[in-house]
Amino acid sequence: MKKNAPQPVIRRLPRYLRKLDELAAAGITRISSAELAERLGLTASQVRQDFSCFGEFGQQGYGYNVKALRSEIARILGMDRDYKIILLGVGNIGRALIDKFRFNDWGFQLVCAFDNNPAIAGTEQNGVPILSEKELEPFLHENKVDAAVLAVTKDFAVEVANVLIACGVDAIWNFTNEEIVEPYSQAIVENIHFSDSLLAMSYCMTERRDNRG
Amino acid sequence: MKKNAPQPVIRRLPRYLRKLDELAAAGITRISSAELAERLGLTASQVRQDFSCFGEFGQQGYGYNVKALRSEIARILGMDRDYKIILLGVGNIGRALIDKFRFNDWGFQLVCAFDNNPAIAGTEQNGVPILSEKELEPFLHENKVDAAVLAVTKDFAVEVANVLIACGVDAIWNFTNEEIVEPYSQAIVENIHFSDSLLAMSYCMTERRDNRG
Repeated sequence: MKKNAPQPVIRRLPRYLRKLDELAAAGITRISSAELAERLGLTASQVRQDFSCFGEFGQQGYGYNVKALRSEIARILGMDRDYKIILLGVGNIGRALIDKFRFNDWGFQLVCAFDNNPAIAGTEQNGVPILSEKELEPFLHENKVDAAVLAVTKDFAVEVANVLIACGVDAIWNFTNEEIVEPYSQAIVENIHFSDSLLAMSYCMTERRDNRG
Repeated sequence: MKKNAPQPVIRRLPRYLRKLDELAAAGITRISSAELAERLGLTASQVRQDFSCFGEFGQQGYGYNVKALRSEIARILGMDRDYKIILLGVGNIGRALIDKFRFNDWGFQLVCAFDNNPAIAGTEQNGVPILSEKELEPFLHENKVDAAVLAVTKDFAVEVANVLIACGVDAIWNFTNEEIVEPYSQAIVENIHFSDSLLAMSYCMTERRDNRG
């Protein structure tokens, strides 16, 4: 299997996965690259080219087996690695993720959360233990943690990220809107920028209005 | 000005905006397409091609004026239209957006929020009035609303979306993880899929581990 796919291909893989889940749920077992492409607003040749980064998935003229392709993409995305993840900052966003986001479905195990509010340290949220921030470093030294959700207040973002990186956490899922620069380039930082999404919507609204005249 | 840019270009515009804000904050007033490209992990020709969708922004061999380019992109994104937006569902995500997300910075005015919990109807959250869900339709008939943040429970997503679309709301920013299919194709639906981001991170973690051997 080849890897090191370009960023745009990596970004499309989760979309393929979601679409294949939808197809499977609708009872569709086989799909051509042309059909899959159309449902995703891509071209058939782009779909074939994307998958060719990772080997051959389909059979010429026969389409893809939905279930097999889904499990292949899940494997490429690392969903079978059972990554251990912790969450920093049990505010509104942190709590929403703990309550609603199905980490398990995506191959992650949410081990515990940390917060600097002593009133909630020692409690549980949706079955996830909440520890005091003071316990973060000892915890990281004693437990293997692969990734962390950073949902602390913007002002603490860099400080907490530095602790995580120093303690060997590989990847940071960053909800703080604060750029975590990686002088070490040791950690993978994935930023959630809500505004990027809102502005793309704003562009489409604006385009439509201007076309209406 | 030409419009109707391809989706990948639209998706890159907010990233250019963020980067230009960073440059301006760092006191940089002019930047070449090559430098801008490098800071964004793109190629110079891609940057030039992206901007050519909307006209000519730079001067050959002289680079872009950071401030002028920023305001041009902001205009293309519709950030000067003062769009009115409402929020549906004041749960954890809804509350996080009301408290922390700076709608104004992106050209949106958050007018009010709606929730089906009678205990919070009539109150305010961070200066934003919260109304009962019963007031949604009358409100939409009496007020011009351009867009809505959909942050209700997954089970209510489609029902509420249908009310919004029927009442002429142009665009839905969808946090529910429920697909809002647009049989009408009247509304623009922009989905926030947290899992796409987590899985892209998972891919990078997996690739790095496999390369380490």
